[in-house]
Amino acid sequence: MHPLYQQMPTSIFEKMSLAAMEHGAVNLGQGFPDFGWPQAILDVAAEALLSQSNQYAPSRGLPVLRQAVADHYNRHHSLVLLPEQVCITAGATEAIAAAIFATIAPGDEVILFTPAYDAYAPLIRRAGGVVREVALQSPAWRIDGAVLREAITGKTRAIVINNPHNPTGRLFDRSELEAVAAVAVDHDLIVISDEVWEHLLLDGQQFTAMASLPAMADRTIKCGSAGKIFSLTGWKVGWLVASPALATLAARAHQFLTFSSPPNLQEAVAFGLNEGDDWLGPMRQSFAAARDRMAGALRAIGYCVQDSAATYFHCVDLEASGIRADDRTFADRAVVEAGIAVVPLSAFAEIDPPRGFIRLCFAKRDSTIDAGVAALERAA
Amino acid sequence: MHPLYQQMPTSIFEKMSLAAMEHGAVNLGQGFPDFGWPQAILDVAAEALLSQSNQYAPSRGLPVLRQAVADHYNRHHSLVLLPEQVCITAGATEAIAAAIFATIAPGDEVILFTPAYDAYAPLIRRAGGVVREVALQSPAWRIDGAVLREAITGKTRAIVINNPHNPTGRLFDRSELEAVAAVAVDHDLIVISDEVWEHLLLDGQQFTAMASLPAMADRTIKCGSAGKIFSLTGWKVGWLVASPALATLAARAHQFLTFSSPPNLQEAVAFGLNEGDDWLGPMRQSFAAARDRMAGALRAIGYCVQDSAATYFHCVDLEASGIRADDRTFADRAVVEAGIAVVPLSAFAEIDPPRGFIRLCFAKRDSTIDAGVAALERAA
Ligand SMILES: CSCCC(=O)C(=O)O
Ligand SMILES: CSCCC(=O)C(=O)O
Repeated sequence: MHPLYQQMPTSIFEKMSLAAMEHGAVNLGQGFPDFGWPQAILDVAAEALLSQSNQYAPSRGLPVLRQAVADHYNRHHSLVLLPEQVCITAGATEAIAAAIFATIAPGDEVILFTPAYDAYAPLIRRAGGVVREVALQSPAWRIDGAVLREAITGKTRAIVINNPHNPTGRLFDRSELEAVAAVAVDHDLIVISDEVWEHLLLDGQQFTAMASLPAMADRTIKCGSAGKIFSLTGWKVGWLVASPALATLAARAHQFLTFSSPPNLQEAVAFGLNEGDDWLGPMRQSFAAARDRMAGALRAIGYCVQDSAATYFHCVDLEASGIRADDRTFADRAVVEAGIAVVPLSAFAEIDPPRGFIRLCFAKRDSTIDAGVAALERAA
Repeated sequence: MHPLYQQMPTSIFEKMSLAAMEHGAVNLGQGFPDFGWPQAILDVAAEALLSQSNQYAPSRGLPVLRQAVADHYNRHHSLVLLPEQVCITAGATEAIAAAIFATIAPGDEVILFTPAYDAYAPLIRRAGGVVREVALQSPAWRIDGAVLREAITGKTRAIVINNPHNPTGRLFDRSELEAVAAVAVDHDLIVISDEVWEHLLLDGQQFTAMASLPAMADRTIKCGSAGKIFSLTGWKVGWLVASPALATLAARAHQFLTFSSPPNLQEAVAFGLNEGDDWLGPMRQSFAAARDRMAGALRAIGYCVQDSAATYFHCVDLEASGIRADDRTFADRAVVEAGIAVVPLSAFAEIDPPRGFIRLCFAKRDSTIDAGVAALERAA
């Protein structure tokens, strides 16, 4: 047996969603919206399922989708990506897994900014790598280039960054990204850039893709997600985008992890991306309104909700809210006693976990938000 | 970079399917049927996509599908599996990956019977394991318990077996399976049993599940595939089934490889499994007829086609067919010059590859078979 899995808990997202189901709780834990997906994409997916091939898609993805992904980013970031640089995966999680397995060899050190999505560390360890946590500090959760540099050693091989950032809802600014890029260039590192939240920008900001920074295109593996772009998280259609050389290496890992993804879903995602970006504005507006509704109502009942600029998430500072319980105790009690599932931030780090915060998913209908806020009032 | 991927070729199945597309060739390479899937399952999948949740399914799978998988095997093998023993994956490839990552630690040796499906060896190596090939010999391709025992060392941790066997089309008999089980019990090994072809039995045989042999239930991880069962290979809905303890470990690997699979496809597969087994007989008959049509026509033009009892595949002995080229040379030429894609058997081993055989997929409509045979006549 590999020792990694002996002590590993179930993913916090699965744990809290199962607990929500068991206790009939409002689920503000796992990150998924309960409204807002485009009906036209569902129709294309159903139509393709009934009228086109349901046999293996090419391992790297349907040509139409690889082209659509390249076109999409070329439009958004003035890049000149080719379809050869795109590999379609079973969601961004598999893209991250393929990127890590392709680039990390035993003994390599990998930087994570914590709090960090819970898949990164176990994948790095299973690849034989050593996790180096660089802890971001509440309430600013800023990347500090000097602190990052201190964590680099002769064995550092890669940095994993997630921008916009889950769980804090931060969009890292250009100077923070440039600090990461400078370290990567100076030490010849790969950057695995989990950009699944790239379009969930709620205050009119511009997103800077890591690969668009000077000297970064050849050392960045970007991970993207149709599930997040189109609010269809269950589809598990994602991709990685990189230089031709890095994309080829990661596609070799991918071909033996899942081989390929359902062709009808790929077809529908290609359709959605090719429709243009008119849906982006309304989507952002509706999620921003949901965020404001939830944050406003929670603040009115005494919760200290941190500002969120992006993603589906905002965090609550428990101590500043007058709550003495640590995050796990609060979360475990809240789902059973108050009927509300949340995610404790300590699940996002191992060496130096933040213990006084919970994460809430605000990408919900008004009725879900109101029920969640009422339950959180009981939980306080 | 991990050295494994630097020299790794593209999967032979992807390579030959891309070549078939490029050259407009008949594709008898990659294993997928071009007829025979049940329309009712497509209808349920389309309906579920339009009417039910498209957000994350539980990581281990929809409860209705886990129950359906357990019921299916309990009915077929008189087992008493519980849904807790089932984990739904992105096809059997991910089930195999999760099983290997969960059980193989650096330095562990793993037995493969070659020719072996091309995903096993790279996954074992990426897990830090050492591949020990045990070569089956043409034309019988039998497992020899004595040869297997010679390959076992103090470091052997697992055996990967594929039954029925791709690429040879053999259903291993009970004495061969008992020989594997005896070695596994004597040396306390895990058996990863890739049983995706379990229902593709073309001559009225009975299939013996590895886990149904005495003392094997607690040490077997079975990998199964809805894509193979229902001739919908593109869906990538598979599963692993094991003891509760082993299933839990493998599910922990799975949660960070893909997390979950599309809920509408899971729903449709559950429907298909719960419909009962009336479709099995007609499916087997039609694939057996396809096999007989292809083998008969090829033998009539001088090809030495080996008997196949199961899977979608049969092999051709090139030398016995009077062809001097080795398998790769034949395959590379045939797709360009004769318009026919086949799979060379040397892709199924590294240390001791069989070099004089090609594999043909016979799960095709009459018109595809006839076009393929005509092209193979040109290729001879
Ligand atoms: C794959 S489950 C987690 C979904 C998500 O992105 C989150 O909740 O952080
Ligand atoms: C995942 S592509 C390979 C399909 C298959 O089982 C085969 O052709 O052997």
